[in-house]
Amino acid sequence: MSVTAALGFSAAGTAAGIKENGDLDVALVVNEGPGRAAAGVFTTNRVRAAPVVWCSQALQDGELSAVVINSGGANACTGHEGFEDTRATAERAALALAGHDVSDIAVLSTGLIGVRLPMERLLPGVDEAAAKRSRDGGETAAMAIKTTDSVHKTAVAGRDGWAVGGMAKGAGMLAPGLATMLVVLTTDAALDAESLDAALRSATRATFDLIDSDGCMSTNDTVLLLSSGASGLTPAYPDFAEAVRTVCADLSRQIVADAEGASKDIRIDVVNAASEDDAVEVGRSIARNNLLKCAIHGEDPNWGRVLSAIGTTSAAFDPDQLDVAINGVWVCKGGAVGEDRDGVDMTGREVVITASLGAGTTAVTVWTNDLTAAYVHENSVYSS
Amino acid sequence: MSVTAALGFSAAGTAAGIKENGDLDVALVVNEGPGRAAAGVFTTNRVRAAPVVWCSQALQDGELSAVVINSGGANACTGHEGFEDTRATAERAALALAGHDVSDIAVLSTGLIGVRLPMERLLPGVDEAAAKRSRDGGETAAMAIKTTDSVHKTAVAGRDGWAVGGMAKGAGMLAPGLATMLVVLTTDAALDAESLDAALRSATRATFDLIDSDGCMSTNDTVLLLSSGASGLTPAYPDFAEAVRTVCADLSRQIVADAEGASKDIRIDVVNAASEDDAVEVGRSIARNNLLKCAIHGEDPNWGRVLSAIGTTSAAFDPDQLDVAINGVWVCKGGAVGEDRDGVDMTGREVVITASLGAGTTAVTVWTNDLTAAYVHENSVYSS
Repeated sequence: MSVTAALGFSAAGTAAGIKENGDLDVALVVNEGPGRAAAGVFTTNRVRAAPVVWCSQALQDGELSAVVINSGGANACTGHEGFEDTRATAERAALALAGHDVSDIAVLSTGLIGVRLPMERLLPGVDEAAAKRSRDGGETAAMAIKTTDSVHKTAVAGRDGWAVGGMAKGAGMLAPGLATMLVVLTTDAALDAESLDAALRSATRATFDLIDSDGCMSTNDTVLLLSSGASGLTPAYPDFAEAVRTVCADLSRQIVADAEGASKDIRIDVVNAASEDDAVEVGRSIARNNLLKCAIHGEDPNWGRVLSAIGTTSAAFDPDQLDVAINGVWVCKGGAVGEDRDGVDMTGREVVITASLGAGTTAVTVWTNDLTAAYVHENSVYSS
Repeated sequence: MSVTAALGFSAAGTAAGIKENGDLDVALVVNEGPGRAAAGVFTTNRVRAAPVVWCSQALQDGELSAVVINSGGANACTGHEGFEDTRATAERAALALAGHDVSDIAVLSTGLIGVRLPMERLLPGVDEAAAKRSRDGGETAAMAIKTTDSVHKTAVAGRDGWAVGGMAKGAGMLAPGLATMLVVLTTDAALDAESLDAALRSATRATFDLIDSDGCMSTNDTVLLLSSGASGLTPAYPDFAEAVRTVCADLSRQIVADAEGASKDIRIDVVNAASEDDAVEVGRSIARNNLLKCAIHGEDPNWGRVLSAIGTTSAAFDPDQLDVAINGVWVCKGGAVGEDRDGVDMTGREVVITASLGAGTTAVTVWTNDLTAAYVHENSVYSS
């Protein structure tokens, strides 16, 4: 599975010693061709890590031939020297891979902000990963990009002789912990960069963009999609876009399920909104309400906190037309008390909040997590 | 002190049995005249509690003669019946006070959302408070408006024969807990409603609006200012505005210090901003960053989280010109590593974060609190 499910890709993971505990910390994904079209989406945080700046430049020609990823350090807020470290990483990979152009090599980093990477360990790690890369290396690569992730995350989709595979790390698009969301997707379907870009943006908008574990946007978030074309097939665009979306949705759900310190996965269905923008604004406002997130942790169907979160948005709605269900019980009807809150069973890991705005027909689903003492603990210790 | 520091005001607090534990839960503040000019500011949450709707209507003529406040129930999201409960409360107070017009009586509520008030207990409580009101009742009134507050909060300012006094409850303008910020200010200075309104808006903009304990905006937040004119003096407007601001700043600081579950008070000084709007947006973004709030709790000078919070704003800045100090140590200079973070002492209750945007000359201070396991615990239990 993972990034080597699609033909034409090799991968590896290795322990270069960036992480002090000896865990895997360098991953390499290589597009062995024949094609090298690629697309990417990046954090909208204006404080962008050096590797994000590098990758956006590398992608300007719509081609990538390899991705080097390190965990154990985000290389963010590291100034000019940090950018030179990223460039040196790409140069080393180009050298080790022979025949790859440095400007086609993406570099992704995740870990602490404001700390320079130990290049004397990272660069030999790149050599080692290049040497041991293989068609079976996808799982090991997925393990090497973990930071506070408790499990590695992979997914695959496709049919009729072509595939889309991927790996992810992170616990929220707006990532918790020291962390970041990094995703590398690969496909052996033959598509041009423009089609890849369209499929990727459409998929991330409906998946990764709608998971909001803790409202904190990373400086490093990156999602890349590389095409080798090795299957020799060019699927119909809708089929391909659907496969990309399936893999992104799968990885998104895995990220939510692995969010730092979380005890509940909260699915927020905003329905009857006047527009997609309204629905997303309302969903995000609910997802970011700390009081509600605490209540869900306590298995308290506190719909008043849902209403007060909706009330802070600019979405179209009449307060007297708001309905809210928690796990299927309409505890709020017409902006006031509805069905008996004692009928709500919140003992499961997944909690579904349905917020009906009564203003249209658009629906959007946003995912978040509860707020727990474990989250506070994990994020109050610097070296976690 | 409190709301009876100014001449022409009486007050009382009583236990009407709204709170099951028998604590004080009904407060009354009466403007005995001769004047009755007043001003108010209210939550901008579009889901507004019945008493907020009532008060804005009562204030339309710029006059108030009394304020009834209950804790133990917010009377929010209670529909038409909830509004009638508020009206009945005002009517009862008008009856008990004799000679007061029902449309000059403000009603404020705080407590759980989505629960009807026990009117059979509240209304006799109004009678009792009216009967026992006195010039010495300010402290008891301040005690009766507490919900999760650990202490009651009062302040006073003024000079030359006139005074501004006030009481507050709450733990954040965008209030944590089940709670809300309610503030009643009184003055014996003789001013018209327009001057009161200007002084109040100017003061709240610089004080209550800039405390953001947990980013959650209440449905009930209200700040009222009543003038009796009983001193017979009309101070110069700047002197009066300064006194109102002093009282508001004092109460704001008390609210931050009493925030639910907090172990740190965090002062965020945004400096060298291009505009006040920019500075407030940046200050609020930092104040709402859960990861940073956890780090401060752990006494970790994690400036990377400050930068990533700044990066999500639309304020004018160049990422390479950002400087950040924590408790006076410039741990980030020019968007990269600055002075040694080990030099930062965060053991005290107050932590000062200075964020310099390098884009202008405007400075704004926003206050928040850290995020703790105690906050999670307090807000995950419904009946707290």
